[in-house]
Amino acid sequence: MLSESESSGRESAVTGLTFEQLCINTIRFLSVDMVQKANSGHPGAPMGAATMACVLWDRFLKHNPDNPSWPDRDRFILSAGHASAMLYSLLYLTGYDLSLDEIRRFRQWGSRTPGHPEYGTVPGVETTTGPLGQGFANGVGMAMAERWLAARYNKPGHEIIDHYTYAVVSDGDLEEGVASEAASLAGTLRLGKLIYLYDDNGISIEGDTDITFTEDVAQRFQAYGWQVVGPIDGLEPADISRAIKMAQEETERPSLIICRTIIGYGSPNKQGKASAHGEPLGEEEVRLAKERLGWPYAEPFTVPLEVLAHFRLAVERGNRWQQEWEDKLQEYRRAYPDEARQLESELQGELPAGWDGELAEVLKDIDKPVATREVSGRVMNKIARTVHSFIGGSADLAPSTKTLLKEYGDYGSEDYAGRNLRFGVREHAMGSVANGMALHGGVIPYTGTFLVFYDYMRPSLRLAALMGVRVIFIFSHDSVGLGEDGPTHQPVEQLMALRGVPGLVTIRPADATETVEAWRVAIERNNGPTALVLSRQNLPLLDRAVLAPAGGLQQGGYILREARKTPEVIIIGTGSEVHIALAAARELEQEGQGARVVSLPSWELFEAQPEEYRNRVLPPGIRARVSIEAGIPLGWERYVGLDGTAIGLPRFGASAPGEVVYQQLGLTPQRVVEEARRLLERRQP
Amino acid sequence: MLSESESSGRESAVTGLTFEQLCINTIRFLSVDMVQKANSGHPGAPMGAATMACVLWDRFLKHNPDNPSWPDRDRFILSAGHASAMLYSLLYLTGYDLSLDEIRRFRQWGSRTPGHPEYGTVPGVETTTGPLGQGFANGVGMAMAERWLAARYNKPGHEIIDHYTYAVVSDGDLEEGVASEAASLAGTLRLGKLIYLYDDNGISIEGDTDITFTEDVAQRFQAYGWQVVGPIDGLEPADISRAIKMAQEETERPSLIICRTIIGYGSPNKQGKASAHGEPLGEEEVRLAKERLGWPYAEPFTVPLEVLAHFRLAVERGNRWQQEWEDKLQEYRRAYPDEARQLESELQGELPAGWDGELAEVLKDIDKPVATREVSGRVMNKIARTVHSFIGGSADLAPSTKTLLKEYGDYGSEDYAGRNLRFGVREHAMGSVANGMALHGGVIPYTGTFLVFYDYMRPSLRLAALMGVRVIFIFSHDSVGLGEDGPTHQPVEQLMALRGVPGLVTIRPADATETVEAWRVAIERNNGPTALVLSRQNLPLLDRAVLAPAGGLQQGGYILREARKTPEVIIIGTGSEVHIALAAARELEQEGQGARVVSLPSWELFEAQPEEYRNRVLPPGIRARVSIEAGIPLGWERYVGLDGTAIGLPRFGASAPGEVVYQQLGLTPQRVVEEARRLLERRQP
Repeated sequence: MLSESESSGRESAVTGLTFEQLCINTIRFLSVDMVQKANSGHPGAPMGAATMACVLWDRFLKHNPDNPSWPDRDRFILSAGHASAMLYSLLYLTGYDLSLDEIRRFRQWGSRTPGHPEYGTVPGVETTTGPLGQGFANGVGMAMAERWLAARYNKPGHEIIDHYTYAVVSDGDLEEGVASEAASLAGTLRLGKLIYLYDDNGISIEGDTDITFTEDVAQRFQAYGWQVVGPIDGLEPADISRAIKMAQEETERPSLIICRTIIGYGSPNKQGKASAHGEPLGEEEVRLAKERLGWPYAEPFTVPLEVLAHFRLAVERGNRWQQEWEDKLQEYRRAYPDEARQLESELQGELPAGWDGELAEVLKDIDKPVATREVSGRVMNKIARTVHSFIGGSADLAPSTKTLLKEYGDYGSEDYAGRNLRFGVREHAMGSVANGMALHGGVIPYTGTFLVFYDYMRPSLRLAALMGVRVIFIFSHDSVGLGEDGPTHQPVEQLMALRGVPGLVTIRPADATETVEAWRVAIERNNGPTALVLSRQNLPLLDRAVLAPAGGLQQGGYILREARKTPEVIIIGTGSEVHIALAAARELEQEGQGARVVSLPSWELFEAQPEEYRNRVLPPGIRARVSIEAGIPLGWERYVGLDGTAIGLPRFGASAPGEVVYQQLGLTPQRVVEEARRLLERRQP
Repeated sequence: MLSESESSGRESAVTGLTFEQLCINTIRFLSVDMVQKANSGHPGAPMGAATMACVLWDRFLKHNPDNPSWPDRDRFILSAGHASAMLYSLLYLTGYDLSLDEIRRFRQWGSRTPGHPEYGTVPGVETTTGPLGQGFANGVGMAMAERWLAARYNKPGHEIIDHYTYAVVSDGDLEEGVASEAASLAGTLRLGKLIYLYDDNGISIEGDTDITFTEDVAQRFQAYGWQVVGPIDGLEPADISRAIKMAQEETERPSLIICRTIIGYGSPNKQGKASAHGEPLGEEEVRLAKERLGWPYAEPFTVPLEVLAHFRLAVERGNRWQQEWEDKLQEYRRAYPDEARQLESELQGELPAGWDGELAEVLKDIDKPVATREVSGRVMNKIARTVHSFIGGSADLAPSTKTLLKEYGDYGSEDYAGRNLRFGVREHAMGSVANGMALHGGVIPYTGTFLVFYDYMRPSLRLAALMGVRVIFIFSHDSVGLGEDGPTHQPVEQLMALRGVPGLVTIRPADATETVEAWRVAIERNNGPTALVLSRQNLPLLDRAVLAPAGGLQQGGYILREARKTPEVIIIGTGSEVHIALAAARELEQEGQGARVVSLPSWELFEAQPEEYRNRVLPPGIRARVSIEAGIPLGWERYVGLDGTAIGLPRFGASAPGEVVYQQLGLTPQRVVEEARRLLERRQP
C-alpha cells in the first residue's frame, strides 16, 4: 500500500494537480468516455465516487489482479452497479485481464463490459449488481462467510482467513428494504470487517433526495449497531483514507462511512443534478468537464503512462500479498494438515468422496406417511455430517421448514463457527446474503422459508440464477395443502414462477425417496442454484418394489408406473399430487384403460434430457394427457398440449384443513379419472 | 369514547379484577378458544396484545360497526395478521356483522373467519394481512390517502376528512424490508395521524429475538422522523391510553408506541416462549391459563353478558359519530356543493361521465414510431384532467416510466394535495402503499417502475389481486429491447409471472392505439388490479385502416390481420413483437401461405371471452401456430400446443443496443417465417 504522502504529495508534471488527483481523474474520464462512446450509461456516479474508489483501491484493497480468485483477497462490491464504468476502469488500470479494447466496447454485444457488472463476465467483478440493495446484502454474506471460515480454520498464529469486505453503496441502495434487512442482520452479527462507503450525493433519478429520503441515515445505522464515520468530504482523499482506517480499527461493528460527494463532479452544467445520472454528458459537456478538472487530453480513453504505471503496481503488490499468504498456508499445512486439506477442498467447492453414502438411511425409519419437509430435514442432518461447508438457515421458520442442523450450533458473534444461520423475518436479505456467501466460496449455503414467501426474495433467486452460484433454496409448505393459514400463506403461482427463472433448477419431490434424490441433485449441482419445494402435509412412501426406482428423479421426469396394457392416457403429477395421479390410474386400470403415471419433479432436469428419452416418457402420439398439480395450470400446457387437461388452481386457495381444501378445489383422484375418461371418449369417433 | 375512570375503575362482580381486565380477558380467551377449537392458529399474540387492542378499540377507535364502510372512520390494521383471532373477537364483541357461530368456525371451509384476516370476507377487516410488513405499509398508504383527501376537500370550518390510521405491528413486521421502506417514506411525508402500536414481545418463531433482532428500534424510527413513545408496559391499560394520547397530540410525525408485552400472557407453561406462537395451547394449558388469569368460565367461548353489553356500546357510539359526520357533510354540501358531489362520487369509486372522451387525442400527434411508455404518459395526463382521484408515482424512475402528471404538483408535507407521489427507490413499499390507498377509498392509485423490478414488489401485487383492489401497476422497459442496461435490467420471466397471478389483469399493448385501449380497461376495472406492460423502445403505429380496430384489445386478443386466403398458420404476438409477427406474415403471404396474425395483449381478458369467440380467433383445427414474445416461452404452449412453436427467450438477456439483442437472440421476422415454414412442411405428408 502507498502511504498517504507517497500518493498524494507528488505533483503531476502535466497538470499541476497532485498525482493522486490525476489518478482519480483518469478513473473519472475513462468512465465518462466509456459512457460517451457507448452513448448509453451512467457518468454521474463514477465522476462523484472516483475519489473514494481510487483511495480504497490504491491505498487499502488487498487483491491480486493476476489471480482474481485468490481466496483471502479483500472483497470489493460496487453495489451501485450503474457505476459499472468506474469498476471496469479500476480493473483495467490495476491490471486485471481486461483490455482497453474491451473498455471501448462498453455495453456492446459480446463485450466483457456489460451495462451493469456481471459476475463471471470479467475477472474482478465479485458479484452482479444493478438491482439496488443486492450488492449491499451480498457483502454481508461475504463477510459472514469470511468470519465462518476464520472461526473454523484459523488457529493461534495462523490467521489463514482474514480479509475485509468493502462496498460502495448509494442512496438508492440504502432506500431498498433488502439493505435495511441486511444491515440489521450485520449489526446483530457484529461483522466488524465489513466496511461500506456510502456515496451520499443527495441525488436520485427523480431529483434531490430531499423529496423522498429525509431520514437520518447515520442514526439509522447506529440503531442497527454499526459504527458510522462521517459525514466526510468524499472528494478529499486524506479524509477518505482516515475514515477507512477508523473503520478498520473498529473490529466489533460494521462501519458505514458517509462520504458527501457530488454527482457528475466536474461537469459544469450537470454536476449536482439528476441529469448527470443516467445518460451520456454529451460531447461538449465532456469537453467542458475535462477542461474544468484540468484534464489536458482531448483524445478519449487517454491514460497517462505514469498513471497506468502507478496503478499497475497493484499487480506486484498483489502477488506479494498472495505469496505471503501462500507462505502462511504452507505453514498451516504443516501444522494442521487435515484442516488445510479440508479448507482447500472446500474453497474449491469440492465434495468429500462418498458424501452421500448415508442419505438413504433416513428411509429406513419411515413406516408411515411423512412430509417431504420432514424428510428433507433428516437428509440435511446427514449431509451436514459429511459436507462440512454446508451451512444455512431460515427466515424465522426453522421449526416449520425443518432446516435446523441439530448437532451444530448457531452462527453469531458468540460463535462464528456455528452452522445455523438465524436470518430473522428477512427473506429478501436471506436470499441475497446466501448469494454473497456462495460467491465468497468455501461454503455451500442454504435458505429456508415457506414457498409463498419466495415472492419476498424473488430478486435474490433471479441473481443466483443469473450468476450461476450454488445456493440451495428450500421452500416448504408448498401448496394449499398447508391448510388453515389460508390464501395469504398458500402458494399457487409460485411453483410455476420458479420454473420460469432461467438457470434455476426446481425440484418438487413426491415422497421421501424422491426427496433423498432431490438433495443429491442440489448438492452436486455446482453451477447454479436449486430450489427444493416441499410439502407441509404427510405423504405416503411410494412403493418402489412395484413402482420405478426413485433414481428417475435424476432425469427430472420418469415413468413411475407403467400401464398394464398399452398406455392410452398419461397422468402427470409432481410432489403431493403424484399420489392422486397414482390413485386415479389404479381406478382407470380397473376400468380397463391403460393409464401411465409420470412423475415430473423437475422440469428443467427433464428438458435437459435427450429428445428420445423425453419422447419415451411422453410419446408424442399419446395426446390424452391429464396433469395434476396444486398450483396454477398455466405452463402445464407444455406437457398436456391443446388436447389434454391441466388440473390445478387458477385461483387463490382457502382457509380450511388441507384435505378439505384439496377436496373442495377438486384436487382429487375422481377429478383426474373424470377428465381422463372425457379425453378418452372424445378420442373415439 | 369512555373515559379512563369509567372503563377501568369498575370492578368486575365475577372475578375481583377490574371490569376492563375482564373485557381484556374476554378478548384473550375468545381468541384462545378459537385456536383451540380449530386445533390450529396462533394463541400467543392475542394473549399478549389483547390489552393494547382493548384500550385502542374501547377508548379511542372511531368506527361504526353498523356501517364498516363509513368513509371517515379510523382505520385499524392488524399487521400481525396471525393474531386474526383477536381481530375477529373485537369485531364480534363490538357488534360487527359476525356471529359467534362464525367465531366457532375459525379456520374452517367457507367460514368468515379464515386463518389470516382477509379483506372482503368479513366487514371490519380493512386489509388482508399475514405476510409480514404488508399491513404496516398499507397503513402508510391509508394515511396518505386520508391526508390527500383532507388537503383536497377540507375547508376552513369543514373538516370533512379527519381520521387516524392505527395498526398493531409485531417484531416480524419491523424486520421486513417493506416496513423499513414504508417507515422512511412515512417519516419524510410527516404523516402525523399514523399511530402504530408495536407489540414488542421479544419472541419470534425461532426463539428470542435476541438471536437476530438486536437493533435499537426506537432509535431507528427516530431516524426515520417518527415520534417514538415508550417502551411502555403493554399490559397496563392506563399506560397504553396515555401513550395513544401522546401520539394523537403529535401532529407532525407518525408515532410508534413501543409496548412491552409477553407472548402467550397468562399461560403458565408457555408464556414468554416461542411455543406460545403458532399452535394451540392444548386443553390443559388453556385451563391453566384461565385459572391463572382468574377467568371463571369453564365453557369455551363464554362472553360475560356485561362485557358484551359494554363492547356493544360501540354501535351506539359509532352511529353517533357517523351522524355527527353526516351532519357536517350536510353543511359541507350546502357550502360546497360541487366539491361535495365530487368527493362523494370519488369515495364511491365512480368515474366522471365521459372521462375517457379525450384519450384518443394523443394519437393525433403521432406521426412516427413512439414507445408505449411515452404514449402511456400522455394518456395518463389526459386521464388526470378528468379523473381527479387519479394519483400515483414511481419508485424513482418517473422520467423513464413517463408516469409524471405534469400539471399537478408533488405530494408532500408542503402540499398534501399534490398528485405525484415520490416513492423513492422503494418498489415494495410503493406497491403496498398503493394497496393501502386503494383500500382507503377516494383515490385510484397507480405505481411505476421497470418490469424487471416487479420482482421487488411481487408480494404487493399478489395481495392487490387477492383483495381485488383497483390499483394500476405500470411496468415500463418491458423486454430485452431496453438494451444496454443488460440482463439485470432486462425482464424475461416477469411477464409470464404476472399472468400467473390469479385475479390480476396484465396488458401488454402493441402500439399507441392499443395503449389507449389498455388504459380504458385499467381505469374501468374496479374489482381488481391491472398491470400495464410498456416498451422502452419506439414502436410503429399499427395502421388501423388496413388492420382490425384497436378496440379488439377489450377482448384480450383479436385477429389483427386476417390471411388473404384461408389461414394455414397463425402467428401470435404481444406488445413490441406484434410488429415482428406482422412482418413475418407479410413475407409468408408473399410466399403464398395464408397467415393470420393475432394480437394477444391480455391473456386474462381473452380467457374471459366465450369459447366461441376464442375458437374464432384461434380455430382448434389450425395447429400450425407460432408465437413470438420477448420473454420466456413457458406458458405459451397454452396457445401453440404440442404442435406449434413458441419463440421467446428461455434465457437471460444481454447488454447491447436493443435492436442488436433482438437480432442476436432470434427475435426476428426471419425466425418466425422459418418456424412457420417448418410447421407447414411437417403438416404435409
